[in-house]
Amino acid sequence: MGALLVFSSLTVASHVGPYAVEFMDRPFVGLGERDIVNSHCIVDARVARLYRDELVGLLGNAKSTLEIEATETAKNLLSFTHYIEHLVESKVRRGDRLVAVGGGIIQDITCFLAATLLRGLDWYFYPTTLLAQADSCIGSKSSINVGKYKNLLGTYTPPRRVFISPTVLKTLDVHDRRSGIGEMLKVHIIDGPASFQKIAADYDRLFSDDDCLATYIRRSLEIKKGIVEEDEFDRGLRNIMNYGHSFGHAIEAATDFRVPHGIAVTMGMDLANFLSFRTGGIPSMVYSSMHAILKKNYHGFEATPIPIEEFFDALGKDKKNVGSRLRLILPDELAKVRAVELEATPEFRDLCIIFLRSMRAAT
Amino acid sequence: MGALLVFSSLTVASHVGPYAVEFMDRPFVGLGERDIVNSHCIVDARVARLYRDELVGLLGNAKSTLEIEATETAKNLLSFTHYIEHLVESKVRRGDRLVAVGGGIIQDITCFLAATLLRGLDWYFYPTTLLAQADSCIGSKSSINVGKYKNLLGTYTPPRRVFISPTVLKTLDVHDRRSGIGEMLKVHIIDGPASFQKIAADYDRLFSDDDCLATYIRRSLEIKKGIVEEDEFDRGLRNIMNYGHSFGHAIEAATDFRVPHGIAVTMGMDLANFLSFRTGGIPSMVYSSMHAILKKNYHGFEATPIPIEEFFDALGKDKKNVGSRLRLILPDELAKVRAVELEATPEFRDLCIIFLRSMRAAT
Repeated sequence: MGALLVFSSLTVASHVGPYAVEFMDRPFVGLGERDIVNSHCIVDARVARLYRDELVGLLGNAKSTLEIEATETAKNLLSFTHYIEHLVESKVRRGDRLVAVGGGIIQDITCFLAATLLRGLDWYFYPTTLLAQADSCIGSKSSINVGKYKNLLGTYTPPRRVFISPTVLKTLDVHDRRSGIGEMLKVHIIDGPASFQKIAADYDRLFSDDDCLATYIRRSLEIKKGIVEEDEFDRGLRNIMNYGHSFGHAIEAATDFRVPHGIAVTMGMDLANFLSFRTGGIPSMVYSSMHAILKKNYHGFEATPIPIEEFFDALGKDKKNVGSRLRLILPDELAKVRAVELEATPEFRDLCIIFLRSMRAAT
Repeated sequence: MGALLVFSSLTVASHVGPYAVEFMDRPFVGLGERDIVNSHCIVDARVARLYRDELVGLLGNAKSTLEIEATETAKNLLSFTHYIEHLVESKVRRGDRLVAVGGGIIQDITCFLAATLLRGLDWYFYPTTLLAQADSCIGSKSSINVGKYKNLLGTYTPPRRVFISPTVLKTLDVHDRRSGIGEMLKVHIIDGPASFQKIAADYDRLFSDDDCLATYIRRSLEIKKGIVEEDEFDRGLRNIMNYGHSFGHAIEAATDFRVPHGIAVTMGMDLANFLSFRTGGIPSMVYSSMHAILKKNYHGFEATPIPIEEFFDALGKDKKNVGSRLRLILPDELAKVRAVELEATPEFRDLCIIFLRSMRAAT
């Protein structure tokens, strides 16, 4: 990556005060020595291997370092006893700080520890995936798995500072990049047709032009900032961020997580649009223009078998459902996404099945 | 218990809004039918056995009930997978409520679940021990054990409503009653000499006169309310509530929890007073007048062996310590309790040893 566009920092308001997202050219910098000596670093083991030299300043001086392989098991509640024992044996104290280096799984683990250990510690975040840089790093949420259930526990606990260096994205594979782009497409669709058309026109450059990618990372965070500042605790407006997610989570669950999160969300948005289109919502032209880009973004995963009963079963268990009714986010006739509640009628199920079959047939 | 004094409710301010403590003659009432059908009850198994008839209205109509034997293992993080699986299988939803029925352990479990499950649920609390009724039911804190470490995790998550019926205290044994009285003595000492003299004069009546006990339960909560409203997150003033606790926790740890919490705290206050008295703090007369009552309250446990090295080891690990210095709460020359930081010097250790030996010799 060459000389990056440098952005001024972005400040996000939260219930515990404002926090800053800072954009830096070099990765893993920004903390002073005095900050580092009271810090316990929680680091994705893959990132630690890939960026050993760049991480020397941080990990070499921290009070302790914990390397974690970023798997779903790592963010299961059962794994926390080990993390906490490590931190206690590293003499963690009130006033110490946790520093997360990695993607969403490392973020979830660190955020949940910061929310609960010693009744609350500050935390900082160096996101290293596109998904984390462009989406999850702001908004306060953590999501922890319990037993066989995903994302059951969590809190709203924002980091105090976020440091984004798109430089580290060069080691992401194309699927992880497209997973992040899925969430970027999502907020741009939520922002309205003009925003979507802009990112759609630049879609191919997101893979070849680092400055272009960095610009859209920042723009995605700006859109999300507007929503989470208005509804941090997910009581109303923020529900629309779930666009593509109820279906996406169901696809992840039904495929045993063979489809990466942001790619499953991309499929989920395409399915949400299809349902809207087929039930008198978005017009055909709008559906098709979005379908062209969304399909490009989940390309290569269309043939992943999605067992239908597992799909509907997971959809029925979504924690956003209300009683027996599904709570979904669908675009209306003006392509504005909205929360709707509906029963999983035979007609609804049929349309889902038609979509999933046609997706597979398109390969 | 006869006709109880009826008190007006007490309202406590918190970061999530005010919550009410209601005093009722009959136990386990106060919730309407509509409240109950969306409630998941978490109940001390002993209380469920003792009060099966009184609990019918609540447990018979709740969405689900989970009975828990109130042990230290029950509030270990490892036990939470089971609780959460039970709640998910009972179709817990956002908007449902948890209802705790029991003492401090049931409170800790329910409060931590309410803080984290589905990113936050409301909870109500029926405290059934004197410790919970007179002290822990307000103030927002939860404390969860992790591995071999006690009270490492927690949050500040107050219940929405607390229902106190001193009627249920009739099934407490005398040690549990004295455990609760230990915390009541603590807040009265913190409130100042006049408050302490009042409860000291009524000490014997706390065991024989239910109205007298109820009056001091309410008074204890009023004193605590003043402190937690000013410093809910334990950043300054509230530290004084730790009076007797660093020593008390060390006594609990060193004796493998053979000494009940409030009784260990009573010993801890007596030791704190002794250290103050022997280092130019509280005058001899004041020390002696408090010692007479405190000793009465821990009577029967003076002979419990307290291994000295285990005691100092636990004291050094207290989460309130600052670096290598102990953070303790000691009374000053005017008997006002204050936070002090000190090193565990040989002189300090000698004074602790003298106290612990003299306590044992007094049996």
